Amino acid sequence: MAIPKITAVGSVGLDTIITPTGKREELLGGSVVHFAVSASFLTKVGMVGVAGDDFSAEHITFLKERNIDLEGLELVENGKTFRWTGSYLDDFNMAKTHRTDLNVFADFQPEIPGAYKSSPIVFLANIAPALQLHVIDQMDESSYRICDTMNLWIDITRDELGKVFEKVDIAIMNDGEARSFTGIDNLVKAGKKMLEYGMDYCVIKKGEHGAMAFGKNDFFTAVPAYPVEEVIDPTGAGDSFAGGFVGYIAEAGNHKPESIKKALRWGSVMGSFNVSDFSCDRFRKTKLEEINNRLAEFERMI
Amino acid sequence: MAIPKITAVGSVGLDTIITPTGKREELLGGSVVHFAVSASFLTKVGMVGVAGDDFSAEHITFLKERNIDLEGLELVENGKTFRWTGSYLDDFNMAKTHRTDLNVFADFQPEIPGAYKSSPIVFLANIAPALQLHVIDQMDESSYRICDTMNLWIDITRDELGKVFEKVDIAIMNDGEARSFTGIDNLVKAGKKMLEYGMDYCVIKKGEHGAMAFGKNDFFTAVPAYPVEEVIDPTGAGDSFAGGFVGYIAEAGNHKPESIKKALRWGSVMGSFNVSDFSCDRFRKTKLEEINNRLAEFERMI
Repeated sequence: MAIPKITAVGSVGLDTIITPTGKREELLGGSVVHFAVSASFLTKVGMVGVAGDDFSAEHITFLKERNIDLEGLELVENGKTFRWTGSYLDDFNMAKTHRTDLNVFADFQPEIPGAYKSSPIVFLANIAPALQLHVIDQMDESSYRICDTMNLWIDITRDELGKVFEKVDIAIMNDGEARSFTGIDNLVKAGKKMLEYGMDYCVIKKGEHGAMAFGKNDFFTAVPAYPVEEVIDPTGAGDSFAGGFVGYIAEAGNHKPESIKKALRWGSVMGSFNVSDFSCDRFRKTKLEEINNRLAEFERMI
Repeated sequence: MAIPKITAVGSVGLDTIITPTGKREELLGGSVVHFAVSASFLTKVGMVGVAGDDFSAEHITFLKERNIDLEGLELVENGKTFRWTGSYLDDFNMAKTHRTDLNVFADFQPEIPGAYKSSPIVFLANIAPALQLHVIDQMDESSYRICDTMNLWIDITRDELGKVFEKVDIAIMNDGEARSFTGIDNLVKAGKKMLEYGMDYCVIKKGEHGAMAFGKNDFFTAVPAYPVEEVIDPTGAGDSFAGGFVGYIAEAGNHKPESIKKALRWGSVMGSFNVSDFSCDRFRKTKLEEINNRLAEFERMI
């Protein structure tokens, strides 16, 4: 098997989403799914996750038809897939969780297939920091490490998350997480503080306000969000952003400041596609040409 | 007297500001003061406002030494200058008003000096919409009209504010005002909605998240904020933004989309200077060269 350019590890789930426009049940979701679908427009992704045998063949076919290798997707016999129900009724920036059933995800111990271990990039999507560390241990030393996280881990496993930050090359967080983890309200200071963990870059996502990146030697860049008039479902927008960002770095083959700037634009554009429909449905009908056109339009705008 | 490139009308006040770093009393403030000090780095400003005879000669000297003409500043004998006390204790994005004494500002009826009436640009800083309309009536038809506003006028004089929007060429608002005035939560839709009033552009300021501009034929551009690590006093940041934005347009001599893009960068940079000290004190020690260096640095960042 070919070595994927990116090995990505995270959650695989079935989401029930309630928005002002309606309720949709059992949609394909999970952090690594949204990430992989987005990144697959740019490069080959090896996906590591777990699902139950109720995970439909249709989803598997959809993922396989993209540039996604599923050797790392464990399907547990007689197991049920992770399920999440959430709503965005008052605020598209913050989901309200109604119900979480971890199911097979409760015992997830990511095992990295042999061929994945020498991927040039490993992406640790939002999962428990202990699992992120377990993945780092299995990957070749030479893999470039990029992680995401969520507030839950800051609240309940802060020390382990700190260990992840010490080991990664790039940390991607949202603004609330950066503030909460560093205890610093000013995002410029918070971003710089993150660099003290030794990483090359810290990327702070700000939803409709775009994203910023901080690097060594006072490197700073920022990008506004690609303007979206109609948000249908923001679930997975951050993962899609990460997919565009990491996918671009994988294809560029380097992480120089110039590549980081371009990668942020890819992230912003891929996030804008994601929110325009439920689940990752917008990507089902998206062609690379359309993405390139939007990127060119975005360059002109800014 | 030479015709100023910009005639600017707004409040002149003495501010008492409480922040986590301390309390400062009777500082030079007011929307047109912050605007004029910022714009004066770029062009000649004719300032129209009112103060009492307690307005210190020191302030007048400071303004005159900049590129600001004070023929339009009325000093009311035996009158007291407008005073405002506000604090930023929990949130630098939102001032809490402790006390407002309108004093001479209560009876302000802006009278535009003859030489100002043919200014190529009139800037209507945050004052009551009725006064903004009164200023428009006095200016030559050919003056390019740019206005700012605040939430108070949306709450209490919405219809008159709508008339202002029908008559201006550019409206500058912040994100909360754009949402509140249009009743639309999505800022991209809200910005486009504003164009229905017939204006050339609507600019939406987002504080630490930068600014966006919407124009005819689906013109859109956005700029992140210049990164500021230490906010000392945000009072007047929006007015300083407007000063850089309008000042650049005055100097460019046109309002083409390319000029609007550059004007947003000027706005962002001038706002970043303003917040770095109390009142407009940071501008007292700022040289044009320093501003140009920051602009160049900002271009490289983004």
